[in-house]
Amino acid sequence: MAFHGTIRPGLIQLKVLDLDKTLNFYKNILGLDEVGRTSDGRVMLKAYDEFDHHSVVLRMDKTAGLDYVGFKVVSSEALEDIKAKTEKFGYAVTEVAPNTEQPGFGKQYKFKLCTGHEFHIYADVDMAPTHPQIRNPDIWNEPPRGMRATRLDHFLLYGPGIEEAERFTKEVLGMYVPEICNTPDGKRLATWITGNNKPHDLAFVEYPKPNTIHHIGFYLQTWEDILNAADLIAVNHLKLDIGPTRHAITRGLTIYFWEPSGNRIETYCGGYMAYPDNPQRVWDADQLGRGLFYFSGEMIPSFLEIVT
Amino acid sequence: MAFHGTIRPGLIQLKVLDLDKTLNFYKNILGLDEVGRTSDGRVMLKAYDEFDHHSVVLRMDKTAGLDYVGFKVVSSEALEDIKAKTEKFGYAVTEVAPNTEQPGFGKQYKFKLCTGHEFHIYADVDMAPTHPQIRNPDIWNEPPRGMRATRLDHFLLYGPGIEEAERFTKEVLGMYVPEICNTPDGKRLATWITGNNKPHDLAFVEYPKPNTIHHIGFYLQTWEDILNAADLIAVNHLKLDIGPTRHAITRGLTIYFWEPSGNRIETYCGGYMAYPDNPQRVWDADQLGRGLFYFSGEMIPSFLEIVT
Amino acid sequence: MAFHGTIRPGLIQLKVLDLDKTLNFYKNILGLDEVGRTSDGRVMLKAYDEFDHHSVVLRMDKTAGLDYVGFKVVSSEALEDIKAKTEKFGYAVTEVAPNTEQPGFGKQYKFKLCTGHEFHIYADVDMAPTHPQIRNPDIWNEPPRGMRATRLDHFLLYGPGIEEAERFTKEVLGMYVPEICNTPDGKRLATWITGNNKPHDLAFVEYPKPNTIHHIGFYLQTWEDILNAADLIAVNHLKLDIGPTRHAITRGLTIYFWEPSGNRIETYCGGYMAYPDNPQRVWDADQLGRGLFYFSGEMIPSFLEIVT
Amino acid sequence: MAFHGTIRPGLIQLKVLDLDKTLNFYKNILGLDEVGRTSDGRVMLKAYDEFDHHSVVLRMDKTAGLDYVGFKVVSSEALEDIKAKTEKFGYAVTEVAPNTEQPGFGKQYKFKLCTGHEFHIYADVDMAPTHPQIRNPDIWNEPPRGMRATRLDHFLLYGPGIEEAERFTKEVLGMYVPEICNTPDGKRLATWITGNNKPHDLAFVEYPKPNTIHHIGFYLQTWEDILNAADLIAVNHLKLDIGPTRHAITRGLTIYFWEPSGNRIETYCGGYMAYPDNPQRVWDADQLGRGLFYFSGEMIPSFLEIVT
Repeated sequence: MAFHGTIRPGLIQLKVLDLDKTLNFYKNILGLDEVGRTSDGRVMLKAYDEFDHHSVVLRMDKTAGLDYVGFKVVSSEALEDIKAKTEKFGYAVTEVAPNTEQPGFGKQYKFKLCTGHEFHIYADVDMAPTHPQIRNPDIWNEPPRGMRATRLDHFLLYGPGIEEAERFTKEVLGMYVPEICNTPDGKRLATWITGNNKPHDLAFVEYPKPNTIHHIGFYLQTWEDILNAADLIAVNHLKLDIGPTRHAITRGLTIYFWEPSGNRIETYCGGYMAYPDNPQRVWDADQLGRGLFYFSGEMIPSFLEIVT
Repeated sequence: MAFHGTIRPGLIQLKVLDLDKTLNFYKNILGLDEVGRTSDGRVMLKAYDEFDHHSVVLRMDKTAGLDYVGFKVVSSEALEDIKAKTEKFGYAVTEVAPNTEQPGFGKQYKFKLCTGHEFHIYADVDMAPTHPQIRNPDIWNEPPRGMRATRLDHFLLYGPGIEEAERFTKEVLGMYVPEICNTPDGKRLATWITGNNKPHDLAFVEYPKPNTIHHIGFYLQTWEDILNAADLIAVNHLKLDIGPTRHAITRGLTIYFWEPSGNRIETYCGGYMAYPDNPQRVWDADQLGRGLFYFSGEMIPSFLEIVT
Repeated sequence: MAFHGTIRPGLIQLKVLDLDKTLNFYKNILGLDEVGRTSDGRVMLKAYDEFDHHSVVLRMDKTAGLDYVGFKVVSSEALEDIKAKTEKFGYAVTEVAPNTEQPGFGKQYKFKLCTGHEFHIYADVDMAPTHPQIRNPDIWNEPPRGMRATRLDHFLLYGPGIEEAERFTKEVLGMYVPEICNTPDGKRLATWITGNNKPHDLAFVEYPKPNTIHHIGFYLQTWEDILNAADLIAVNHLKLDIGPTRHAITRGLTIYFWEPSGNRIETYCGGYMAYPDNPQRVWDADQLGRGLFYFSGEMIPSFLEIVT
Repeated sequence: MAFHGTIRPGLIQLKVLDLDKTLNFYKNILGLDEVGRTSDGRVMLKAYDEFDHHSVVLRMDKTAGLDYVGFKVVSSEALEDIKAKTEKFGYAVTEVAPNTEQPGFGKQYKFKLCTGHEFHIYADVDMAPTHPQIRNPDIWNEPPRGMRATRLDHFLLYGPGIEEAERFTKEVLGMYVPEICNTPDGKRLATWITGNNKPHDLAFVEYPKPNTIHHIGFYLQTWEDILNAADLIAVNHLKLDIGPTRHAITRGLTIYFWEPSGNRIETYCGGYMAYPDNPQRVWDADQLGRGLFYFSGEMIPSFLEIVT
């Protein structure tokens, strides 16, 4: 097996304002499947091409935003190893009760980064009741719905101290950093981090307010699916933020928009095949507009200013 | 860094009959760039989106077919570790002179599998003279040409004893096996193997004749690029084998055709994101036709009968 | 108004064997909407992007095949003019009772060509109960289903005497002929005919048996929709005939397959913008394989041999 | 032949500032072919999929903008008929010397609309030296270059009195009007006009300054070609105006940007199949933002303010 450390970002718990309206978005427009509800009323969802029990959890609250994100690691041994390294790195680690906080999930540890974000790690998850076929498989069970999101893909987190956070993902989570953006005085302004061949599993932007999230990225298959997502944004009168456009960073094709509770969603496709032996791409801060919005080449203020 | 063992299949040396005509295909139709020639007249080529010095080498001979394939491994330590494990597995290992057999490549080891195929492994390769940009990168240096092949992607090898070969790739090369096909009595008929998130880096089909190759796969970006490749096959009067179609196995979209020397080429895109924790997909032999050629659901004889 | 003569092929009545199973195909797989049923049990259907009352009618019978096709003409005056010209051409014309044979359709004339096919012409049709929006329109009312057929597009008819039939469509129906295929002795083997900017509204192949139909073509939007159609063929275990491929003739992208009653369906997209002032493309009979199946360049026997 | 009146917009003469730099754009980025130069130094260009001698002419001047546009009509008889109707409508008509003003073009008439724009009409044009193949045709002669523009598609003209101009195109040029936009008091704000099955050959926006042009539209084949055009805008540091996005009006997919001389170019694909019997789509002025920029639903000021 060619991996150690984390396999992928596999879990996000989001705060939403209006559960029914927001759930309608995630199910019928974004195209996730509802797996079930927790005893305390949270809704568990997954994309049609994911095997694990669920990946997205919606919790009603008075504000939108992030509760926490979770990463699956390669094995129980890796889980304990990462726990120990996390503590050694200086972050306190707590165990989460298995199957309670996240039904279907085994042993979980949680800890908080300097950026204020709560991360979970886990190795064992039950297979979802409905999952991609295994024996002589068809390409899907039912035609994908709505925007046809295939999987939870990545997060962009805003907070203070991202150089430390980046170092943590490398030294402790076993990830690598395909692209960075530095200020003229050499400080990290943004960083794109992955634990596999995707150009990013998560990204950070330096920001004074801790524990904020810019967007949650879902993967679509093609640029034509991006068009379909844009049409669904229009027909359903969702609020578009940016796109369709290309990021030069990651080379991904993208739209940003807000779901009904105000969390920013990215539907994303493309992106290069990242390899740990490829040189790290480096962006100068004055080129970040072009790096993010390749066609216009100019920064769009909402990208830097609006977070939840 | 989240990988150990092999990173990717990074090298193939092919025998060709008519160097000029065949080279014209690889450069102007498939879209590779010529990096240079070895002192003994072999031609080194690479795809526009690859960083390493070269990935495809053409050697003139009286028959088409394979000299060897090579895999890049994550580090010099991994190289020595895999060498030792290979010998322990029972395959004799020889060192290849650095920079001679493959200019730009550092230390290489070679060994022969039970299937008759020669594999090379290496950790260090010079960066190609022309490679993807690193500082504030554009998406390419020049508009991709012809079929716009982005990278050497995978090989399908035919030979005897593929269960052992599969075991070798797992135990020694650190790869995993997203899909297999078994005969009714449980013997391995075919196996798809990867060392990263691609659904296959290489595949084997059980076949009595050793050291034969079915095809070399190059990665295109989209189904529309597959169409463009098909148009170029038609306009250039290349011999189509199969496609455009979809493999249910890997879910890839594909065309097979023969380059002017008679080596079968696959231009391929799509395919699911493979993860080592996903269940292994299993195909029954009587469903292999559907697994390979999803739209017709029927085996195409040339697929099983013609190899070089 | 820049048109005279026919506007488009707007109606086809097909014989089907198993109404429920076949209707499920047309509605849930091809993606047509059921408009209603005639008093004698025929089912009226339309594509989501058509305004007219219906375009496809299914009638239960003991064999599959064609009852008749219908063409909409530009005006009531044109209808009478074409009627008179048809009789002058030598074909007997009968009036069809309005709103009985085809509910929602006004005055219709019918006549039989030398090829044995019954043609209908009409100028007035009610708008369908559900049709594309008119005031500040969205791009559709509901997300298109299944193969997302946008419209009835064209027919390929097989029968004797197609040179006369071609002449009839030009001289009487006001159409033109973007492409033809001739035998070495200069006889018409096949002809592609249109009354607008599509490269064909109908086509004929010379064939001894009268009143046979090769396929009914439905228009999809893109090559990616062709892929989606192919996936639906596979998942639903429909019988694929040919494709996905490109016709050099019309340049269209295509799949042929059989619906559950055995009528051959083409899902088609692309095709050049035809203009009446462009030169007529001419195919030699020995190049017809390449003209029809551009990627392989070879005739596929089922194309010439299987008709209903 | 199913057409009368105009066949298509077939000619545009543009003023450019820097001929070399601008010509490089039209040839190597947009992908047109240079046909030749007039004796007075203007450059004649055409798209690879056009048969006529040329369609775009560049003339050096001190400002960017429009000299005139031309429409091909179906026959010499139609040409004289339209000339007579134009004079009856009240516009003075002048003959242009054949083969002088536009080499390769036969008899041409010119006249000025109330909006200030000069229109040319003509029936006879020589075939271009290089044109799509006619006998057993391949899909192109050479792989399309750059943005792969297939044809001159349409113009958007700004000027005063567009209700009269619209009436002229219908009554004299034999065109029809698939979509309109009215102010709350029922005055025409914008109109989309066609002489074939395209949703527009030209469009007008009501504007106080006469003889101004908003953009020249070139047709691309697919949404993926729109992406390629956007990538070329980025790589070549052209100035993007708007997009990629969808117009709900025409349903076309689009990017607007400026060529080096400052003329606004649209690369456009998609759009519905327009028919003269379909109901006219009607936009309310307060929905025009959504009609033009469907994904955001909001008017973009540069669209209304910047013209040449």
